[in-house]
Amino acid sequence: MIGDEILSGRTQDKNLNFLAKNLAELGISLKEVRVVPDIEGEIIEAINSLRKKYDYIFTSGGIGPTHDDITSAAVAKAFDAKLILHKTAEEILRKHYGDQLNEARLKMAYIPQGASLLDNPVSSAPGFRIENVFVMAGVPKIFEAMYEAASKELIGGKKTQSQEITTDLTEGYLAYDLEQLQKKYPQVAMGSYPFVSGTSLVFRSIDYVALERSCAEMVEIVAKIKCNTISTLK
Amino acid sequence: MIGDEILSGRTQDKNLNFLAKNLAELGISLKEVRVVPDIEGEIIEAINSLRKKYDYIFTSGGIGPTHDDITSAAVAKAFDAKLILHKTAEEILRKHYGDQLNEARLKMAYIPQGASLLDNPVSSAPGFRIENVFVMAGVPKIFEAMYEAASKELIGGKKTQSQEITTDLTEGYLAYDLEQLQKKYPQVAMGSYPFVSGTSLVFRSIDYVALERSCAEMVEIVAKIKCNTISTLK
Repeated sequence: MIGDEILSGRTQDKNLNFLAKNLAELGISLKEVRVVPDIEGEIIEAINSLRKKYDYIFTSGGIGPTHDDITSAAVAKAFDAKLILHKTAEEILRKHYGDQLNEARLKMAYIPQGASLLDNPVSSAPGFRIENVFVMAGVPKIFEAMYEAASKELIGGKKTQSQEITTDLTEGYLAYDLEQLQKKYPQVAMGSYPFVSGTSLVFRSIDYVALERSCAEMVEIVAKIKCNTISTLK
Repeated sequence: MIGDEILSGRTQDKNLNFLAKNLAELGISLKEVRVVPDIEGEIIEAINSLRKKYDYIFTSGGIGPTHDDITSAAVAKAFDAKLILHKTAEEILRKHYGDQLNEARLKMAYIPQGASLLDNPVSSAPGFRIENVFVMAGVPKIFEAMYEAASKELIGGKKTQSQEITTDLTEGYLAYDLEQLQKKYPQVAMGSYPFVSGTSLVFRSIDYVALERSCAEMVEIVAKIKCNTISTLK
């Protein structure tokens, strides 16, 4: 995510959660997120360290017509590519804006050489893909539309399934048995998320049989702890 | 932010926005955010690269009693410090849990040697500070309570003030003049944020006079562009 507006607290981010959920649907796990300011060096550094580390990167924000929209230029520099006027992007903008296509708007047709376009049915100005980096808008509606285009190019994996067990027992009662169960089923990621008056246990795995079994065992464990806790507390 | 639950999309983060807004109140700018999974190496890497780069770091998540709560141990490793049983933290937990203080809960009293505690009036188990790193809980209510304690130790700066101009003109009409104005007032950060049927311009500065002046000029510019646009569009 690129943008001072997230870091200043002005804007509440909505794209992270959308992306996480939709990638999960394709069997792709979101592994890391960074929010960086509108500073060229910071964007370049983030792009270059993440694109080598992961299969895909998605950026949001900073591809509009104003002076603070510097993402496309920064991505070009990260790839040591020229920022060029993309003919198809220019046509799309010309069709959309007609004689209102001024210099500022035309800036949105400049993308790194070698990049391909990501369709934007909402406001026409396209996003783009260069190698494994998908560069998309920050406005959630447009981000979501561009993701729709990007998702067709993604190679997914086996979908992670998850099951959730909610109990009014707090984490401290569950921790020991949960850890033993985690050791028994290393192929299931067992997360424990406290809320004010209880705990949600979320089990996630691509091994659906192990997921079912471990969940069933956990339900029994929770019931047993609950009986003991009630008797302990009188 | 540390936690698979944010990256899987299960949990919508709320702490980023809270932190950004509250730091701004103290005249401290949030400069970067990372969301990393519950993997020790990733946490250590993030802590160590960020703590050298910035004045303060705040972490959220992973300090509970379950096996997936590995933040305290990872922070200790990042500082090459031992993870020790903190006597005061132990007392706090003993007072809160009484004879229900089992081994899992006691884990929350283990913090890196040299760290000081951050009070947690919500659920007792404290956060901690080691050097410039504040380690806090992920549950928003507890994160917010710990921030209250942490904020007393922060050295703030002059508060950035902001003004917002909202118009139904889209960014493309404003971009050229906005850029000229940005050049005239380099001490004012001018952000342009499109929404579906218009634009919000947010001006931010610690130079309050320049902020007032540039805003007044922008309001005039917007009015002028609007007149021209209406006449152009007939």
